[in-house]
Amino acid sequence: MDNMNQYRTVGLEKVELKEGFFREYQELVQRVVIPYQWEALNDRIPEAEKSYAIHNFKVAAGLEEGEFGGLVFQDSDVAKWLEAVGYSLSAAPDPELEKQADEVIEYIEKAQQEDGYLNTFFTLKRPKEKWTNLMDCHELYCAGHMMEAAVAYYNATGKRKLLDVMCRFADHINSVFGTEEGKIHGYDGHEEIELALVKLYKATGEEKYLNLSKYFIDERGKEPNFFLLEWEKRGKSSFWNPSDHRQPEVSYNQAHIPVREQTEAIGHAVRAVYLYSGMADIAALTKDESLKKACKALWNNIVTKQMYITGGIGSTHSGEAFTFDYDLPNDTVYQETCASIGLFLFAHRMTLLEENGSYGDIMERALYNSIISGMGFDGKSFFYVNPMEVWPKASEKNPERKHVAPVRQKWYGCACCPPNLARLLMSLRQYIYTYSEDTIYAHLYIPSKAEIEAGGSKIILEQNTGYPWDGGVRIKLGLNKEMEYTLKLRIPSWCRKYQVSVNGEAMTAEAGQLENGFLSIHRNWCDGDEVVLQMEMPVEIIQSHPEVRANAGKVSIMRGPLVYCLEETDNGPNLSALSLEIGTGFELKEEAGLMKGALSITGQGFRISDKEWNHSLYRPFKAEEEKTEIKAIPYFLWGNRDKGEMLVWMNHK
Amino acid sequence: MDNMNQYRTVGLEKVELKEGFFREYQELVQRVVIPYQWEALNDRIPEAEKSYAIHNFKVAAGLEEGEFGGLVFQDSDVAKWLEAVGYSLSAAPDPELEKQADEVIEYIEKAQQEDGYLNTFFTLKRPKEKWTNLMDCHELYCAGHMMEAAVAYYNATGKRKLLDVMCRFADHINSVFGTEEGKIHGYDGHEEIELALVKLYKATGEEKYLNLSKYFIDERGKEPNFFLLEWEKRGKSSFWNPSDHRQPEVSYNQAHIPVREQTEAIGHAVRAVYLYSGMADIAALTKDESLKKACKALWNNIVTKQMYITGGIGSTHSGEAFTFDYDLPNDTVYQETCASIGLFLFAHRMTLLEENGSYGDIMERALYNSIISGMGFDGKSFFYVNPMEVWPKASEKNPERKHVAPVRQKWYGCACCPPNLARLLMSLRQYIYTYSEDTIYAHLYIPSKAEIEAGGSKIILEQNTGYPWDGGVRIKLGLNKEMEYTLKLRIPSWCRKYQVSVNGEAMTAEAGQLENGFLSIHRNWCDGDEVVLQMEMPVEIIQSHPEVRANAGKVSIMRGPLVYCLEETDNGPNLSALSLEIGTGFELKEEAGLMKGALSITGQGFRISDKEWNHSLYRPFKAEEEKTEIKAIPYFLWGNRDKGEMLVWMNHK
Repeated sequence: MDNMNQYRTVGLEKVELKEGFFREYQELVQRVVIPYQWEALNDRIPEAEKSYAIHNFKVAAGLEEGEFGGLVFQDSDVAKWLEAVGYSLSAAPDPELEKQADEVIEYIEKAQQEDGYLNTFFTLKRPKEKWTNLMDCHELYCAGHMMEAAVAYYNATGKRKLLDVMCRFADHINSVFGTEEGKIHGYDGHEEIELALVKLYKATGEEKYLNLSKYFIDERGKEPNFFLLEWEKRGKSSFWNPSDHRQPEVSYNQAHIPVREQTEAIGHAVRAVYLYSGMADIAALTKDESLKKACKALWNNIVTKQMYITGGIGSTHSGEAFTFDYDLPNDTVYQETCASIGLFLFAHRMTLLEENGSYGDIMERALYNSIISGMGFDGKSFFYVNPMEVWPKASEKNPERKHVAPVRQKWYGCACCPPNLARLLMSLRQYIYTYSEDTIYAHLYIPSKAEIEAGGSKIILEQNTGYPWDGGVRIKLGLNKEMEYTLKLRIPSWCRKYQVSVNGEAMTAEAGQLENGFLSIHRNWCDGDEVVLQMEMPVEIIQSHPEVRANAGKVSIMRGPLVYCLEETDNGPNLSALSLEIGTGFELKEEAGLMKGALSITGQGFRISDKEWNHSLYRPFKAEEEKTEIKAIPYFLWGNRDKGEMLVWMNHK
Repeated sequence: MDNMNQYRTVGLEKVELKEGFFREYQELVQRVVIPYQWEALNDRIPEAEKSYAIHNFKVAAGLEEGEFGGLVFQDSDVAKWLEAVGYSLSAAPDPELEKQADEVIEYIEKAQQEDGYLNTFFTLKRPKEKWTNLMDCHELYCAGHMMEAAVAYYNATGKRKLLDVMCRFADHINSVFGTEEGKIHGYDGHEEIELALVKLYKATGEEKYLNLSKYFIDERGKEPNFFLLEWEKRGKSSFWNPSDHRQPEVSYNQAHIPVREQTEAIGHAVRAVYLYSGMADIAALTKDESLKKACKALWNNIVTKQMYITGGIGSTHSGEAFTFDYDLPNDTVYQETCASIGLFLFAHRMTLLEENGSYGDIMERALYNSIISGMGFDGKSFFYVNPMEVWPKASEKNPERKHVAPVRQKWYGCACCPPNLARLLMSLRQYIYTYSEDTIYAHLYIPSKAEIEAGGSKIILEQNTGYPWDGGVRIKLGLNKEMEYTLKLRIPSWCRKYQVSVNGEAMTAEAGQLENGFLSIHRNWCDGDEVVLQMEMPVEIIQSHPEVRANAGKVSIMRGPLVYCLEETDNGPNLSALSLEIGTGFELKEEAGLMKGALSITGQGFRISDKEWNHSLYRPFKAEEEKTEIKAIPYFLWGNRDKGEMLVWMNHK
């Protein structure tokens, strides 16, 4: 079914992570995160907020007495866990885990209603209010996540039970929503089902699911506005605050204008990038140029105007939302882990639309910075918000900084991020390459072994790299027979110098041309051919576009794909009193107590003296600074030692 | 009654403003603000939010049909207007205005209940709920403002009607509140009555009012906490959000611990400084050393750790509150006009407690910056929030900046600030001097004529100055007879060089000693003696204490008491791309279109170039800057031209 599409993904079952950076993450997820989340979903983590998620399904299935607990979208946590389990089982069998999952799937099947409907909140609490508040209540969102889980579990195990459940539910949704008279001409307040239906279509080959996804995308934002009609119909009240009768701001849900007219990322950041992902899917599968154009405009708006250096998005806590171009405050940042994951997913889908290295650049940027910063070493503590600076006292005492947790939390009542991280890390291997009939694209550098059928042959790619600590990448090809083919290696935008060789022979500039961010190697490949890409990875001092007012006069430190930050543990308190010397040399050092192989960066700078202030708060300017060392660690590793200040954007001299 | 006090204020009727900076403000208030506010209180300003304030009194008086409108503390707007009218009438007779005021006082008298109770909200809307929610409902706050009005009007006109009304109400309050059994052992959620009762005591000589004030101060914050008991009693609900059952944070109301134990300014900033003002009054009048100690600790905490350079306070919109030491964010600042006024009032009361130039310094700082910035040239537009930086697009599109209005508003539904400004400006002349039997203190430099009876003689002080544009001050003494006496002139903390002469003869260092921030001139004074103080007033580049993270690496510009700021009108968009050159020369220029005599400051600096960014958001650091002029205008004048960006703290080189 993927055939219509020019660019294709590689099935999870065809890729295996090899020893290295992300293999460790994958193992952490398998060994700790999935079991820990299982405990969390079953409310067995002491001192953590209760989930109720499994309980809800059991009650809805008639297997347990009790009431619905948790948030209206609690079902989705089970879905994301099951999805991660699917990916995990496709990487390595685990009969015990599979048994757990099968059991949960039993509950889910039993919780499904006669007509196919499935949602424990509405089944248990408001059976008469199904489909009456699409804007607030996440029914289709939860459905979407369960569809993703069903596809993942089916692909991993071949077991159809959950897939069948979700096809029945999709058919029911298809009977309820659409342009036809008598159907609801609506769509969900939290996009997700759009991309999920595409997965269901790919797994089953049923075009009706593709069409339903396309319907949700086409309908969104049309006049008269569905959410406003729905709001009037239910007496102008909000699910979250029934006494609030203000007209809802439908741009929060990206429903202010039809999606093809949207050019600026707006509203709730996770919703936005999930929608854009679905749009990119449909654009690719239906060759819809107007949709592709909208995707590109939205992409460009995000990455050139609304994205933190860490690949995070969401400039405000209020609505967990985008704000506007160049508004990237560090102190009141939101940058939710889920939003970074959503941007990654959007980027991946853009690689299926057109050849452009920028998509892989941003996947890499988000992945190594704002995504994995969401989880602690222990696999049991998580950030929902990924701040750009932390002053623990402000988090405690300034209400406008309260959303910034200075330490990772055990679990959240609204636990979208931890299971989202788990499913991404468990499926990461499918994002390394894409391919077409004549070209393989390497988007990510991760030690792995992948098998691709293309150009009438089977191609095995064995990739080896010390990424992100080292810029060397070695890719060995395994072939049945000699073949003419193109291998395109993404040259990251951070990389300013690199060498490439094939079988030890350096490529000349003419032979290896940089096109759209890829180094293209076209040749007659033989079995055992080896490409070596050596990217120089110096420490760089980075600045922001001058329109980013929050970073004016400030710089950050990067090395390769990694953004670095300062922590109080290394630099003492009051990080804002430090300024980095432009032109300083940097020393790299393997840092004990952080992570195997992790490199810290030490440079020279200055510290404003706080002596001679004599209890005054303001005084005529005196340059009183001491020379000092400044030590930075990778951003994704912050908050793994003592609680303290953290800073990404620092002053400079 | 003032006799017990070492330091005394000068009665309003004894001081007259002369032509100069504040005389113009006073005339603006008389000519425009008071009449405009009269229209506002009567709901006759088109397009402005409705006040209902006069309407409410008329309805409560039985003179008009209708319902209560506006906020629970709407009565206080009428009180503040009447207070300003009193001050105005004491400056210049105005029969028409006096007639208006007398009429309003009629309504007020008629609205008073049999037992003395007076509050239109409770009388009209919740007659059975009087005194049941002291924490939220401002009954004593409104009473306090009306007491201030009554005293002002009585002092100006000799008319006792409102004074009598308020004495009756005070007596009623005295019968309801107190330590005795059967009385409410409570106090108001919004402090104000404490300082107002002191005024009532001073006007009437009735010690019971002083004692009642002292009771409110002594009771506050004791265990068990009154507000929590009250909250439990009313079913744990909040007036502002009845469905919110969270336990209230009583530090918001400075009621978390007894006031004598408080050392850090906390909670709602206006409430806080009104309380501290009352505490300082009681400390002075009752020679209460423990209370004085608390006042000094709170004062020091504010001015050395929690005050913006403009003399503004309140670091967060949420709760309009203090946050914690050195937390002075510029982007999410609150700095309400009323809070600056409250800090001014607190400072003045501290001058009555001890000799220390810092109090006058802060009065001056707040007055010339965050207070008068609250009002536009036209006398009809006002800021509630006084920001330290403005990016109009952020005010519009980032919810966390929404409280920052980029242009002054016509009127507010919660209109505390405009009438507060009016009453302060109309009574400013009483804050210029304080005195004791042997010393006169000059705290503020404002052209004026004051008459003081001290040391057995009448002393007339004619002050002339071009302040704040010019640092020259001339004070001529008028005396009946030669007298030995001390004149202490505050040497502002911004002043690093000055010369003083008496009758043209320069004073030597020995003769004129600087003590506690005052230059002390002790001599045998003769009628016609003239002191000339010449303070050098260079442009200064100012920095913040390094612990103020928000200002790290930034500077601001001051000249004399004035904080300067950059505006887009003068410097083009994106002010954050500018950096001031340390060591630049500055040019002063009289600026057309701002205010007569207003001086702009132009210096040299740099502008980060936004060329060659090629649609990227981040890039390796390149120093690409152009030389540019940077022009600053006085902060208090910002927002009087085109809507645009504004910035106080700027980068530097």
